[in-house]
Amino acid sequence: MNNREVIISTRLRLARNLKNYPFPCRMTPEQAQQVAKKVKEAVLDGGSVLANRFKYIDMAELTQEQAVSLVEKHLISPEFISEAPGRGLLLLDDETVSIMINEEDHIRLQVIMDGLDLNKAYDIANKLDTMLDETLSLAFNDKLGYLTQCPTNLGTGMRASVMMHLPALQEAHAMGRIAENLSKLGLTLRGTYGEGSEPKCAMYQLSNQVTLGISEQTAIDNLKNIALQLSSQEKSSRESLVQNIKTRDAISRSFGILRYARLISNDESMRLLSNLRLGAAEGVIKKIPLEEIDKLIRETQPATLMSNAGKRLTPAERDSARAEMISKALSKYAV
Amino acid sequence: MNNREVIISTRLRLARNLKNYPFPCRMTPEQAQQVAKKVKEAVLDGGSVLANRFKYIDMAELTQEQAVSLVEKHLISPEFISEAPGRGLLLLDDETVSIMINEEDHIRLQVIMDGLDLNKAYDIANKLDTMLDETLSLAFNDKLGYLTQCPTNLGTGMRASVMMHLPALQEAHAMGRIAENLSKLGLTLRGTYGEGSEPKCAMYQLSNQVTLGISEQTAIDNLKNIALQLSSQEKSSRESLVQNIKTRDAISRSFGILRYARLISNDESMRLLSNLRLGAAEGVIKKIPLEEIDKLIRETQPATLMSNAGKRLTPAERDSARAEMISKALSKYAV
Repeated sequence: MNNREVIISTRLRLARNLKNYPFPCRMTPEQAQQVAKKVKEAVLDGGSVLANRFKYIDMAELTQEQAVSLVEKHLISPEFISEAPGRGLLLLDDETVSIMINEEDHIRLQVIMDGLDLNKAYDIANKLDTMLDETLSLAFNDKLGYLTQCPTNLGTGMRASVMMHLPALQEAHAMGRIAENLSKLGLTLRGTYGEGSEPKCAMYQLSNQVTLGISEQTAIDNLKNIALQLSSQEKSSRESLVQNIKTRDAISRSFGILRYARLISNDESMRLLSNLRLGAAEGVIKKIPLEEIDKLIRETQPATLMSNAGKRLTPAERDSARAEMISKALSKYAV
Repeated sequence: MNNREVIISTRLRLARNLKNYPFPCRMTPEQAQQVAKKVKEAVLDGGSVLANRFKYIDMAELTQEQAVSLVEKHLISPEFISEAPGRGLLLLDDETVSIMINEEDHIRLQVIMDGLDLNKAYDIANKLDTMLDETLSLAFNDKLGYLTQCPTNLGTGMRASVMMHLPALQEAHAMGRIAENLSKLGLTLRGTYGEGSEPKCAMYQLSNQVTLGISEQTAIDNLKNIALQLSSQEKSSRESLVQNIKTRDAISRSFGILRYARLISNDESMRLLSNLRLGAAEGVIKKIPLEEIDKLIRETQPATLMSNAGKRLTPAERDSARAEMISKALSKYAV
């Protein structure tokens, strides 16, 4: 049980820098190329069991759609797309591990796991970190810990986050209050997939903020406990919400529209897929695997749609391709 | 071929009065009862082959829902519901013939046929009229024809109308202009099922206005020709409309919502059933018999829903019963 009903995924990121190079913002293009080469070799030839499952992507060679698609899938940061020399990405074949080279720090290593799985994510990140540490000279200070460009990352250099689906709490307009309380505990809660305090798909990212003076395990345990607490708050809110005939109507209609629409915008599909996820998780509609709904949410984002189509699409073409993908995926669950 | 794609039904009405009684608005209650008795006996004992298929309904004995349901099904006029002595309805078992006794005139005989079938409707009405004429003394004047309370019905006492589904012409905002042109030809076009110049379900009634100085056959031929002309205008408008991906999307979504909604208002279901009818008629969606869609439009009207449920329903209960009826009916057409 990894709380899939509420928790979509776990992400854990480590920020690391090489000792003998300035931070990326101050490097010459030559230094950037050298760092990229060193990190790439450390991973691909470093003897990790994962080594031959990584592929190296030179960011300069991607189309705009391919690059933005990586952002939509949370594999890179939006800032990583901008023109800068020596930017490369090491991506594991199943996309659970991504290593940005020369983003804000020389190395930004990220692990994504389905559901709530902070320990496993940390375990994988830690093994790769150990390997990097053995091959490269990482910037480390006994007092400050790992050195990072931004002081907020000093120490563990770790940031862990959990993506949560909180439709019932959002419906109750509880998000502002909850986010405020969490910030007092050193945690950040913010909407994802789109701006605004109440995102269309009711997806939120809960992340730790403190990296200094706290061990990785403590940070992880802390985040995990809060995530579980928030998850049970959401679950109990859902209980009364899904008893409401209007909610059941909205969920069932969402299935009908998603199954039969021939054009659908990203905003609308996010809103309806969120309803569908709630309904599938709480048994209001026929069981649809949550993984399948989460995959639809990821794959119907504009750039990912275009990247998979292998070409630029007009907004109308995207709406049509999105509707077709969703309709096809849901056809086997029609009753 | 009776133009079912565009023409829902044909209605033909004859107004007749008994010679030795004042018009209903001036009758005493006793006279009203006598007229009701005479007409009832003339039909039930008059030797018509249909005689034993008629049932007599005393309007005073109906619940409000049962009475309004008859209006929704176009079997009686709304005015016929109001309290007045001696009002009775003779209704054929399949509801194709209804005879209002003591409405505006002593006898209002109506025949409804599916699709465009004015000649058959007239044939049935005419046979019943002949039978009434043989049994009762009808008010007739050699110069004016049949005498009716309202001078606009003098002459043939006949009013024929055709109910048409005109979503493409309505979408093109052509209804105002068309209605204006038709009125110059002595025909009336007006929306049905709800008020407003553009009814939710795009259903319109085309009817003749002239009863004096024109034979029944001429009036029928005239109406039929205009209905066929309007029908082909609608058909050619549909051709381009259904090529539009937005129309196809709206039609397909309408199916999805109707199939899966658990609450649906009458306004929304009218709008969506109209889309569905267009899509089914033009092959945009899987073939659904138009008769079935027309039946849903009739049976999901508020009072008919309650009349069939056998009790008063709150608006929320109606929305739920309506959604359930539609969802069930459409389940066998889901793809």
